[in-house]
Amino acid sequence: MPPPLATRRVMGKTCATPREDEFMSRSTALVILAAGQGTRMNSDLPKVLHKLAGAPVLAHAMRAGAQIEPDRTIVVTGHEAEQVEQAVREFDEAAICVRQTEQLGTGHAVAQALPALEGFSGRVIILYGDTPLVRPETLQALADNPAEIAITGFHAADPRRYGRLITSDRGLERIVEFKDAKDEERAISLCNGGMMAVSYPLLAELLAEMKNDNAAGEYYLTDLVSLARARGAQAAVVMCKEDEVLGVDTRSQLARAEALFQARARAEALENGVTLTAPETVFFAFDTVIGRDAIVGPNVVFGSGVTVESGAEIRAFCHLEGCHISRGATVGPFARLRPGAELAEDVHVGNFVEIKNAILDEGVKVGHLSYLGDAHVGEHTNIGAGTITCNYDGVMKHRTEIGARAFIGSDTMLVAPVRIGAGAFTATGSVITQDVPAEALAIARARQENKPGFATRLVEKLKKAKAARAARRELN
Amino acid sequence: MPPPLATRRVMGKTCATPREDEFMSRSTALVILAAGQGTRMNSDLPKVLHKLAGAPVLAHAMRAGAQIEPDRTIVVTGHEAEQVEQAVREFDEAAICVRQTEQLGTGHAVAQALPALEGFSGRVIILYGDTPLVRPETLQALADNPAEIAITGFHAADPRRYGRLITSDRGLERIVEFKDAKDEERAISLCNGGMMAVSYPLLAELLAEMKNDNAAGEYYLTDLVSLARARGAQAAVVMCKEDEVLGVDTRSQLARAEALFQARARAEALENGVTLTAPETVFFAFDTVIGRDAIVGPNVVFGSGVTVESGAEIRAFCHLEGCHISRGATVGPFARLRPGAELAEDVHVGNFVEIKNAILDEGVKVGHLSYLGDAHVGEHTNIGAGTITCNYDGVMKHRTEIGARAFIGSDTMLVAPVRIGAGAFTATGSVITQDVPAEALAIARARQENKPGFATRLVEKLKKAKAARAARRELN
Amino acid sequence: MPPPLATRRVMGKTCATPREDEFMSRSTALVILAAGQGTRMNSDLPKVLHKLAGAPVLAHAMRAGAQIEPDRTIVVTGHEAEQVEQAVREFDEAAICVRQTEQLGTGHAVAQALPALEGFSGRVIILYGDTPLVRPETLQALADNPAEIAITGFHAADPRRYGRLITSDRGLERIVEFKDAKDEERAISLCNGGMMAVSYPLLAELLAEMKNDNAAGEYYLTDLVSLARARGAQAAVVMCKEDEVLGVDTRSQLARAEALFQARARAEALENGVTLTAPETVFFAFDTVIGRDAIVGPNVVFGSGVTVESGAEIRAFCHLEGCHISRGATVGPFARLRPGAELAEDVHVGNFVEIKNAILDEGVKVGHLSYLGDAHVGEHTNIGAGTITCNYDGVMKHRTEIGARAFIGSDTMLVAPVRIGAGAFTATGSVITQDVPAEALAIARARQENKPGFATRLVEKLKKAKAARAARRELN
Repeated sequence: MPPPLATRRVMGKTCATPREDEFMSRSTALVILAAGQGTRMNSDLPKVLHKLAGAPVLAHAMRAGAQIEPDRTIVVTGHEAEQVEQAVREFDEAAICVRQTEQLGTGHAVAQALPALEGFSGRVIILYGDTPLVRPETLQALADNPAEIAITGFHAADPRRYGRLITSDRGLERIVEFKDAKDEERAISLCNGGMMAVSYPLLAELLAEMKNDNAAGEYYLTDLVSLARARGAQAAVVMCKEDEVLGVDTRSQLARAEALFQARARAEALENGVTLTAPETVFFAFDTVIGRDAIVGPNVVFGSGVTVESGAEIRAFCHLEGCHISRGATVGPFARLRPGAELAEDVHVGNFVEIKNAILDEGVKVGHLSYLGDAHVGEHTNIGAGTITCNYDGVMKHRTEIGARAFIGSDTMLVAPVRIGAGAFTATGSVITQDVPAEALAIARARQENKPGFATRLVEKLKKAKAARAARRELN
Repeated sequence: MPPPLATRRVMGKTCATPREDEFMSRSTALVILAAGQGTRMNSDLPKVLHKLAGAPVLAHAMRAGAQIEPDRTIVVTGHEAEQVEQAVREFDEAAICVRQTEQLGTGHAVAQALPALEGFSGRVIILYGDTPLVRPETLQALADNPAEIAITGFHAADPRRYGRLITSDRGLERIVEFKDAKDEERAISLCNGGMMAVSYPLLAELLAEMKNDNAAGEYYLTDLVSLARARGAQAAVVMCKEDEVLGVDTRSQLARAEALFQARARAEALENGVTLTAPETVFFAFDTVIGRDAIVGPNVVFGSGVTVESGAEIRAFCHLEGCHISRGATVGPFARLRPGAELAEDVHVGNFVEIKNAILDEGVKVGHLSYLGDAHVGEHTNIGAGTITCNYDGVMKHRTEIGARAFIGSDTMLVAPVRIGAGAFTATGSVITQDVPAEALAIARARQENKPGFATRLVEKLKKAKAARAARRELN
Repeated sequence: MPPPLATRRVMGKTCATPREDEFMSRSTALVILAAGQGTRMNSDLPKVLHKLAGAPVLAHAMRAGAQIEPDRTIVVTGHEAEQVEQAVREFDEAAICVRQTEQLGTGHAVAQALPALEGFSGRVIILYGDTPLVRPETLQALADNPAEIAITGFHAADPRRYGRLITSDRGLERIVEFKDAKDEERAISLCNGGMMAVSYPLLAELLAEMKNDNAAGEYYLTDLVSLARARGAQAAVVMCKEDEVLGVDTRSQLARAEALFQARARAEALENGVTLTAPETVFFAFDTVIGRDAIVGPNVVFGSGVTVESGAEIRAFCHLEGCHISRGATVGPFARLRPGAELAEDVHVGNFVEIKNAILDEGVKVGHLSYLGDAHVGEHTNIGAGTITCNYDGVMKHRTEIGARAFIGSDTMLVAPVRIGAGAFTATGSVITQDVPAEALAIARARQENKPGFATRLVEKLKKAKAARAARRELN
């Protein structure tokens, strides 16, 4: 695995990691609502499982939540619950999944989490599995706010669709849905961001009081505020940015969320001293790590699990996943690094080269048209153009081991399992099926024969055949 | 050819296909003006033949026109008429081409179409070969409008360059060119969109009355409106969007039209349930068909004639033309599918792979660095890295047939014509020139020989040669 | 080297090349300030050496300056002076570098250039190494302005950060920093662009008068204006565009400068009659030359030193550096041309092909998965898929010569140094180590053997081995 980097900085969400001492506040629990179907996605996949920057939308919300180090994380599932729960476990084994079997509103959804909160005493933070861009700072502010109930608010560029937060000098008074709002309330630009925090024993009491005497017959989470105020509890607004409340209900919104995520990640990379020639053409994953003075050319796509050290260069048209690129290494253009590719310092991977589950030691060069899979290549070895590790025999995968300072001739087929010793050579065009001792030359090819005049005769023969074929076609 | 897809939805223009019964109205004829040179394109190619989303600009206008199922389609050609007429025939064999040999204005151009309208009685729709983004609905509305003459109008974001439509409660009164407009007329934001519909016998009469007593000495189509009004005929405005009237007179406008086309196609794909990770980096052709829950990564270019079924995945950096990709197939990154590539369900085409005129049956895998051309590959066959179908012998192309569940070893050269039987194996690095029976193993390679110590001696020899070469250079 | 092109037009800066007679004015000297560190770049590389459109930021300023054909060019270096001076010499051998060893302000920096101006009498133009987008016309206007001191001014979209130019009917009176400006001065939108011209003997006198009695203790170049006015010299404003004064102090600004450069270059290419399907995805270098009616698809990256003739076509996903592409040639998709690649007329280079330091004569085709390096290929030769010139023996590089109308079979390894005669054939899969005479057929391969039933038995054996492996794992 890649060594820890002094310069390592995490892209995206984690960029905003607050200092540790900031987390030493109250006991917190997360409740993440992820039961919705997302009909408008027009998809067989539940909306919270669509991918954003290489991870399910839901994982982004969970990831932001994890930053505040909650004591418990409870995810409320419903639509395609098993599939969603599996994704939850992949991201956080300790998360508790509870099911909402009927879709009776957000208030009802949170109520399903109450059994899992038994014995808890602290702050419950409620967020949404389809709202992936919330910042950890916002969740922390919700956790830290002294009011018994706190709800996120933001100033919307175009506030037409949102509920309004009505405040007084005592704090938040109530939430008014746009359709129910009077003109003077509509003039308020402070909108309801949805995410909220409620102190625990209070949350259970308020949920018990909640009613569904509305047109839809649903229990609305927003009612918690007026219920709390009715008993004299204090309510507060915690400000956030509009992009944090973007919900993913359609593929357009998913694409919009991706664009916002990428804009944040690119800005952060530039800020951290990464050169992006054309930032708008670089796509980061949720967990990309990239060092200062690294250079990334146009059209580079990062899948998940990539770390790039300082001073590495990724040229145009590269596709990287689950790999590590060390200081001084150069990759591309047109390179693909797949999971398990580890490039040590000063490695060069050139064009039309694929590396998968392979460790390339310092100074290895793989310049052209090659595939290295399930392999280890020793330092300063040169891999000729067209080299292929034949790692699959139709049934199993096998490993290739190449020693240091070896020279693999062009178009060498390395039929794994096979070992090439240090300093060994393989002759161009050889199929290597047996181990090659150190410093030996391995050769497996036929002797060249030149047949004078044969090319001319061959062309004549082929032309006759072509004419014959044409004649036959004419006949038919 | 690909089977009809239940999920097939056509991108771009055809997305807006109205219901069939909407077309059952009057008899219609299209007159498409395509005689102009387009000097500002700075090109040897006539402007209407420049490509937009994979088809000539003119074909886009023709395609929109074809949606209203006209009884006749007449294209007026002039500049490089033969070249333009050939393109017209390629797109619609039934279209009638008439020539405008002198450039005497748009009114004169339409007059050239009169002989071809002989015997016609109905609605003539006039549109422009260099205005590719007109929507079929707009043409249908022109056809359906009850007024004897109807002209498209739009509200321009910046109306400086456009003629104004002057209306009264009787409908459209006249068109005023901007340069001739009074201040109060300039204040009108309703602009002339150019496309129009005129009932047929009236059109012939009005054209006969038309005069060219203006500075340029040209016959202007816009004069039809005032001529019609002068005889008491009714004129109407049919509203359209500004993007529909974008004319392609410069390469910048061509690029702008491409961008608008792509924006429409991307929005439609998202709406139809396609995931586009980065919509702004995906380029569709005029006829791309793509199913629900297909996933398209960043930087994918669709040439013409591509159909993608539901649930297929196209990864980043793919280039596709004239191919079909079935449900469950995965393509790329860095794959190129050329015309005639047909991927059945669950086929995997990986990186640096080119497929041309080849059918890959269910479950075939071609993972790396291969070229399959003029071939058929049976189901669940595995094609090793570096496999090439040698389909060209210098004179003719030949086919390669590979059976089901075969295993083609890495770096296999399949010298066509050649057949590999079902369940057969080819050994890594073999050049296969003869047919391989089912379940046989074909091998064509030299035995490996290891020469101990030779690598070291070789390096020494090469280093001496290098020193000698350097010394010789020094001397010269 | 590529022949001069009738259609050659230089992208970017040089697009604006004024007519020669416009340069016949006064004697000029350039002073370019390039001593700053650029701490905000967060980089080990001095800010002026970061790359913009393939050349150091500093080279762009020098390139703009060179257009006015100065008598002397003086670059003031400081931070990492040796590295910067080397870059200066690479771009302009005649440039004089002088060092500013202490960072005492811009006035102090210019003072370091005085010794190098000895004997000069004319106009000194002062510009900035970190301001790469200045247009030559602006520098020429500074040179030509009759006032004794002239300074660039521009109207800023958002003028908050800039100093203001205070003018009267006598011309420029003084420059006020924003922080020192009164409200009525802040209301002025004419901002200080920084670049200036001062007549030579006056410059020396004014620098001698300059004081550093300010908070920072620095000598400010902007003080020159008030010093000049104080002695009754005339000062003038030369207008420029806001983008010309963009300074590169952060990676975001570098990315912004790149975007502005590209926008200029793309607009110019379109204007010159180049088709760019998706201009926003094409990246030009500072020196790209591209002919009329050339077509460039989406996602093409030009490194430095590329010339493309009229009517050539570069398809999507190409990466080009230091190469020449002639009329009628087609390149890509997925092609990489490296320095020294020269494609004659009608050459075709297809997908996953790399060409380096190789001349391809008229009509050569290299369609698929090949690497040609250090080679010359005669006209109308066909290079089969998977061909590799093995140009490196582990110690030296060698050349490959291929004659006209040859046919190189697929997967041919050409072990250089080697010559293939005109009209010769190489058999598929051959490793060619010896020269092939003209019209001969060279073959180097083993005979194919089919082993009936062996594939089935092999699979059984492999499956047993797999089961055994699994069993062993179970035990451990």
